[in-house]
Amino acid sequence: MLDLVIRGGSVATEFGVFQADIGVEDGRISRVARLVEEPAEKVINAGGKLVIPGGIDGHVHFAMHYSDGIYTADDFYSGTVAAACGGITTIIDFATPEQGQSFIDAFIARRRQADGEVAVDYGLHLSVVSADARRLAELGELYNEHGVASIKVFTAYRRRGLMLDDGAMLDVLREAARLGILVLAHCENEDIINRNVERFLSEGKTGVEYHGLSRPDYVEAEAIRRLSFFAGLTGARLLVVHLSSGMGLEAVRDARRVGVRVYAETCPHYLMFDDSVYRSRDAALYLMSPPLKSTRDRDALWEGVVDGGITVMGSDHACFTARDKRRSEVFTEIPGGVQGTENIIPILYSEGVAKGRLSIERFVALVSANPARLYGLYPRKGAILPGSDADLTIIDPNMKVRLGRDALHSRLDHSIYEGVEVRGYPTEVVSRGRVIVENREFVGQRGWGQYLARRGNPKTVEGL
Amino acid sequence: MLDLVIRGGSVATEFGVFQADIGVEDGRISRVARLVEEPAEKVINAGGKLVIPGGIDGHVHFAMHYSDGIYTADDFYSGTVAAACGGITTIIDFATPEQGQSFIDAFIARRRQADGEVAVDYGLHLSVVSADARRLAELGELYNEHGVASIKVFTAYRRRGLMLDDGAMLDVLREAARLGILVLAHCENEDIINRNVERFLSEGKTGVEYHGLSRPDYVEAEAIRRLSFFAGLTGARLLVVHLSSGMGLEAVRDARRVGVRVYAETCPHYLMFDDSVYRSRDAALYLMSPPLKSTRDRDALWEGVVDGGITVMGSDHACFTARDKRRSEVFTEIPGGVQGTENIIPILYSEGVAKGRLSIERFVALVSANPARLYGLYPRKGAILPGSDADLTIIDPNMKVRLGRDALHSRLDHSIYEGVEVRGYPTEVVSRGRVIVENREFVGQRGWGQYLARRGNPKTVEGL
Amino acid sequence: MLDLVIRGGSVATEFGVFQADIGVEDGRISRVARLVEEPAEKVINAGGKLVIPGGIDGHVHFAMHYSDGIYTADDFYSGTVAAACGGITTIIDFATPEQGQSFIDAFIARRRQADGEVAVDYGLHLSVVSADARRLAELGELYNEHGVASIKVFTAYRRRGLMLDDGAMLDVLREAARLGILVLAHCENEDIINRNVERFLSEGKTGVEYHGLSRPDYVEAEAIRRLSFFAGLTGARLLVVHLSSGMGLEAVRDARRVGVRVYAETCPHYLMFDDSVYRSRDAALYLMSPPLKSTRDRDALWEGVVDGGITVMGSDHACFTARDKRRSEVFTEIPGGVQGTENIIPILYSEGVAKGRLSIERFVALVSANPARLYGLYPRKGAILPGSDADLTIIDPNMKVRLGRDALHSRLDHSIYEGVEVRGYPTEVVSRGRVIVENREFVGQRGWGQYLARRGNPKTVEGL
Amino acid sequence: MLDLVIRGGSVATEFGVFQADIGVEDGRISRVARLVEEPAEKVINAGGKLVIPGGIDGHVHFAMHYSDGIYTADDFYSGTVAAACGGITTIIDFATPEQGQSFIDAFIARRRQADGEVAVDYGLHLSVVSADARRLAELGELYNEHGVASIKVFTAYRRRGLMLDDGAMLDVLREAARLGILVLAHCENEDIINRNVERFLSEGKTGVEYHGLSRPDYVEAEAIRRLSFFAGLTGARLLVVHLSSGMGLEAVRDARRVGVRVYAETCPHYLMFDDSVYRSRDAALYLMSPPLKSTRDRDALWEGVVDGGITVMGSDHACFTARDKRRSEVFTEIPGGVQGTENIIPILYSEGVAKGRLSIERFVALVSANPARLYGLYPRKGAILPGSDADLTIIDPNMKVRLGRDALHSRLDHSIYEGVEVRGYPTEVVSRGRVIVENREFVGQRGWGQYLARRGNPKTVEGL
Repeated sequence: MLDLVIRGGSVATEFGVFQADIGVEDGRISRVARLVEEPAEKVINAGGKLVIPGGIDGHVHFAMHYSDGIYTADDFYSGTVAAACGGITTIIDFATPEQGQSFIDAFIARRRQADGEVAVDYGLHLSVVSADARRLAELGELYNEHGVASIKVFTAYRRRGLMLDDGAMLDVLREAARLGILVLAHCENEDIINRNVERFLSEGKTGVEYHGLSRPDYVEAEAIRRLSFFAGLTGARLLVVHLSSGMGLEAVRDARRVGVRVYAETCPHYLMFDDSVYRSRDAALYLMSPPLKSTRDRDALWEGVVDGGITVMGSDHACFTARDKRRSEVFTEIPGGVQGTENIIPILYSEGVAKGRLSIERFVALVSANPARLYGLYPRKGAILPGSDADLTIIDPNMKVRLGRDALHSRLDHSIYEGVEVRGYPTEVVSRGRVIVENREFVGQRGWGQYLARRGNPKTVEGL
Repeated sequence: MLDLVIRGGSVATEFGVFQADIGVEDGRISRVARLVEEPAEKVINAGGKLVIPGGIDGHVHFAMHYSDGIYTADDFYSGTVAAACGGITTIIDFATPEQGQSFIDAFIARRRQADGEVAVDYGLHLSVVSADARRLAELGELYNEHGVASIKVFTAYRRRGLMLDDGAMLDVLREAARLGILVLAHCENEDIINRNVERFLSEGKTGVEYHGLSRPDYVEAEAIRRLSFFAGLTGARLLVVHLSSGMGLEAVRDARRVGVRVYAETCPHYLMFDDSVYRSRDAALYLMSPPLKSTRDRDALWEGVVDGGITVMGSDHACFTARDKRRSEVFTEIPGGVQGTENIIPILYSEGVAKGRLSIERFVALVSANPARLYGLYPRKGAILPGSDADLTIIDPNMKVRLGRDALHSRLDHSIYEGVEVRGYPTEVVSRGRVIVENREFVGQRGWGQYLARRGNPKTVEGL
Repeated sequence: MLDLVIRGGSVATEFGVFQADIGVEDGRISRVARLVEEPAEKVINAGGKLVIPGGIDGHVHFAMHYSDGIYTADDFYSGTVAAACGGITTIIDFATPEQGQSFIDAFIARRRQADGEVAVDYGLHLSVVSADARRLAELGELYNEHGVASIKVFTAYRRRGLMLDDGAMLDVLREAARLGILVLAHCENEDIINRNVERFLSEGKTGVEYHGLSRPDYVEAEAIRRLSFFAGLTGARLLVVHLSSGMGLEAVRDARRVGVRVYAETCPHYLMFDDSVYRSRDAALYLMSPPLKSTRDRDALWEGVVDGGITVMGSDHACFTARDKRRSEVFTEIPGGVQGTENIIPILYSEGVAKGRLSIERFVALVSANPARLYGLYPRKGAILPGSDADLTIIDPNMKVRLGRDALHSRLDHSIYEGVEVRGYPTEVVSRGRVIVENREFVGQRGWGQYLARRGNPKTVEGL
Repeated sequence: MLDLVIRGGSVATEFGVFQADIGVEDGRISRVARLVEEPAEKVINAGGKLVIPGGIDGHVHFAMHYSDGIYTADDFYSGTVAAACGGITTIIDFATPEQGQSFIDAFIARRRQADGEVAVDYGLHLSVVSADARRLAELGELYNEHGVASIKVFTAYRRRGLMLDDGAMLDVLREAARLGILVLAHCENEDIINRNVERFLSEGKTGVEYHGLSRPDYVEAEAIRRLSFFAGLTGARLLVVHLSSGMGLEAVRDARRVGVRVYAETCPHYLMFDDSVYRSRDAALYLMSPPLKSTRDRDALWEGVVDGGITVMGSDHACFTARDKRRSEVFTEIPGGVQGTENIIPILYSEGVAKGRLSIERFVALVSANPARLYGLYPRKGAILPGSDADLTIIDPNMKVRLGRDALHSRLDHSIYEGVEVRGYPTEVVSRGRVIVENREFVGQRGWGQYLARRGNPKTVEGL
């Protein structure tokens, strides 16, 4: 007796699409077959639908403190419910130590926050916010004992205590290379931003549009080039997160051309919108860093999504209520971030696959298989193979949904996607064999998700 | 009741390795599962062994007439038996029209030769030996009616009527691009060879070593650069066959860098031997074109095999008996070619995987998945997925075999591999669900193989 | 007592422009000074004018037999008079052996034709039309005994006996590299042209426009890439003559980027006209090989002229009377070529310098200094230095001239430049200290010119 | 009656070598002639010698305050005497404002220090040590009113108040590009150095060898890549000064390949010595920044000198007495710098030209013509043309000199060149027509030198 059978779907992996039934036992895929005839506790009819390995969003900020008592609108529960409803079955958030705090303490505290809350499986990146020897030594322990196979570094946010200077950065990358763990990098040039910001403020230019103007494309591209150079020196693997510009993408391509292992993530909002939103009435709601760039940049990012210049999708989900977003009219005082974890799959499928720009295989690679590999989860996640976790997302390719506050499950009280219509939507989602979304409604359970210890240095497929 | 179950093996695909049973019905894989418990007509115990999708050798010359009544030692039957015993479940041979003959007639005649003889499934490339409008028009019919999704062109062998000049070449590539079919190319510069040969002969230098000296690496590299330029102009997909030199590989890499769709095949002998064999007593037996190059070239080809510069393995299996090889002592009169179809998998596994140079995934890509994609057979062949043909090769990774005439199944009376010891060997081979090799012995049937109509322009995976 | 003083001009060299007088004794420049006060036999007042080193046209065809008794309209006398009136003080023509003729005999015969006729100094390139060992051995003698420091090769014109196949080509380049002599190359792919021509003729497309259509840009680019590859292999220095296309220029740039010593010449007609002339009534008069290409190609060539992608100007002066040009209406039967030696300096100055596209220094480099270096004449020619030959061209930068049959000195009875107005024109020309053009009129003497023995491997300035 | 004639020498310029006499009137070259027969006040017989345009050392630090009352050993007088004796007829020093000081005031104060002292002509670069709007506005005035056509920026030395952060840097480069002035850059990554230094000091590693180890090649290469990226963005022309590493040179080459106008200077000590000196007893005397690197780096720099990757030579002459150098044994407390202005020409000639590695033309380009162009002095300086300043250096190619404290004219009490033997030495030097060095002895006059107002954006020769 099987626990679950998904019957009659088109199974879509990064390698191809084929008709098959999928049988599940004990939370894992136990068979992939033309026809699974054994009886099962539960059967999902996926006829006419796509079955993909569950999405992995490696870039979320749930239950994050901004400052002065401002928190993100989504905590680990509401955030993972939204993720699940968007077809995401794994999220990876961050443990970000306070100044002076032990990295391990910060990690443990963050696990405590998430365990018992999360509706899907989750992992944690460690934000490396200082680089003294004692802290660096903790990275090995975190990796070996807790499976923290990835860290995050910042070239910006000096005042918020996140930035590493180049000397510290180089040592961190060297240690990451030694351990074989992945380095996620927020790449923007701090000093150029600061100089622009100071000039604007001194000229009384405080509106949201100046947020964008203070961080032009080269701000991103310079930092990517610098970190790529360091990655080349040290042998570290680097993932440039939230890539937002064509010039930044060129930097990534140039580095890869000379053999540096640099990858890029982009977010659905960079593929969907451009900086014209900063001239709208609700501009403040859509402030984020890096800011939205020009239509030409958006087009360049689509090229990267299609041709492999960009390796993974992530959401950078970081939601603040309209009230918090509007607390100040000075762009430097507005908390940055938009929602996204529920939008990755609908946007990329609708704008990419349904519009014929993107193959299904590459779609699956971007939202599931590549993140699984990069983050050290493959083939437990990201694959439809016997033995893999039964994390599965069923997409109805013909379903039309109008996105916005009503359709989405985040606690956020507004949405940059308000009114956007997509075609193709996740209808059922399975997490470790359990159906957690049915007919687009969440039917899972708070705390169902488990912490994922991960492995570094994935060697499963060339190129990653 | 299943027809066949392969139980307990490590299933190895281009994407990873996992423990699974494979169930077969009606010649196709019907399930891939942790455990297949249904009863089956036949069960193969693959415990401790690797199960890979059956090998595809896209480059064989069986039952080929050389000249003056000299034929290859292997016909379609003996050749495919050798292939099967080497873990190859699909071969692709060539239909090569006589001067003036209709391409379609040549194709039909060649099918007649093969059908009823072949022990494994087979396809045919069409050698395009002339390019007048009437002939070019036949390519469309061959592709649409007969699934001939690939052609072969030659930049050399003018006197044997095989060579196309650059004008004809360009038109052929243009037509291939229009149809979306693949172009295999023998790349050597005819005029440089001829000049070298004439000089050597005029100086009385007739020994086999002068065969090698008349075709240095740049003879290959120039032709590759030229055809790559034409491929770039026309949009044709090009497969450089039997790549033999580091300089040639650089030409392939350079073309790909600027976006031209050029791929390369190399053969096991280029990975195993170097031009020192031309100074041995049996040099004549090992004459082939392109000739073996230096150790440095061999090392460069290994790099390409590992890093993706080379996309597929093929054998260029073309065997002539020692007597035929020694009929003349003048190098220009010796029929060229060595055996190989039975050696691809053992050599690449032993020298590559067993020695730690090559990942299993890339090994499977080179011998099965990539050829399946390039030649238009994927996912019917080259994959272990529900619905794929049950072509499976089981490798015992610990078995040691000393290669040579006794161990191999070709009718050839000698072997360039004589005495070479390999570790890791195919023990069982399944073709469309039928066991055709058991315990390293052929147990299949003459004529079991079927002709494969193929599709062009495969879009299954980016990069091919 | 000096022989000649040129007073008050702006002396323009490849390195800069400065006010200076130039004193001449015994045919050579003896001083360059702010003020030359010594008395002189003759004084030219160059106030308000530019004084440049005399132009060098390394590519002319005077007194050339086409076929069936058709000869070029200009012989060595009329051709060099035209050259002189265009500011050219050195021309280099070709000695082209008959099939089977000794290279040395051909050279001596050609010298006999020119000596006593030429109005300016001249040199000869040797056209290498065969490559058997005996002939190749003559190259050394021609270079060492006769100063033939450059040869010409053809990748086309097989039927006219000019083409070398790739094997012969490689040996010729190897010998040229050994001797340190320059290789001029006509780069067009013979077989592609032939195929196009045959198709057009078979379709009854015989008009002049099909001449252009049979030789598209890639015909040139492919041959350049091939020869550049051979130049890289052998170490030969290569000059691609009459470059006509942007795609060809890209091939030159690519080769230089990887360190191959490849240079390019273009002709004034490729900078002035485009293929729209082939749709005019007089199309036949303007047929040449390679044909004029698109406006985009013309623009690309201008870029090369400005940025150094193109190294020298030459004319490819090859004139046939309107009657000869119109003897047949089938494009393959029309003798190719237009006039040009008298137009290089006026066109490049007017279209380049006067229009602000080109610096004066680069103008001098293109028409005089660079050819002097490449062809082995520097600093005897191409420089305004004490000791250099007093070959000087004085340009009135404000003089406007309407070109055409009346204004030009060729014997040709029509002109592709008819009606073109230029600004800036040579008014006085000095050859070895003797004034040969005064006030735009030829005042020199038949036979004044001397044969120039040249040196190979010029090392005077890096980069050439 | 001429003022001076230099007779019988081989005149060597960047463009070639020729026999000529040079006549001088009123401080300028008035004629260059095979034979100058007019009478002259003074005649120098240069038979058997080379006459080159006087050397230009664009990088000296005379009369520089280090800290705590420590000054360089050479002031403007002794420094320029040393320069003159090394064949240098123009030096360019720096005006470096105090924190808060007006740039113009700093410039004027520095002129006051130099005027009346200098023995040769001189210019001043302005060190841009802050970038607020008021200061940036002064750059235009300094350029337009005072001919300050070049500025200096630092990516390091934050504590000494010299460093600009990336935001300031970008604005400075933008302004420099607008004005058309050159940007000299000290390229080392401040934060990486600091981190290394702190680690060494915390480990008690205070010896001189740790100075070198704290500034490995990538410290230089990263900063070059970053500034080159900014130069590309802004269109500024950048001169990387005191290039010390092969990896840095690669960064320069990469930037130029993509069209950025980046040039490099190296110093004689980087061509002559390597980091083995830091293991010698006198290591402290040879401490400088950037430090000497490995022999491989030295070889790479020679390649750049020969092939054009490096554009100019400069000395970075900054001398401190042995006592000052040894005041502390902690490497961070030792004033950096060695002598050099007197060594540029002897070292480059002897090690380069005399040893056959370097052509004379390129030698002249590196020490005179290229600096003249880059710094906006051409053709007043750097050329031997009528009208140019009569700044001339006569080199006896056969004279052997053993360098060291006795042979050199700096006030420094030791020398890194002690005991080095060179072949080829300046014997006479002429500054604006006046002989200031005769028979290797200084015969000039304190205060003879004049301040040089310079022009930006030189367009005299392509490529600079």
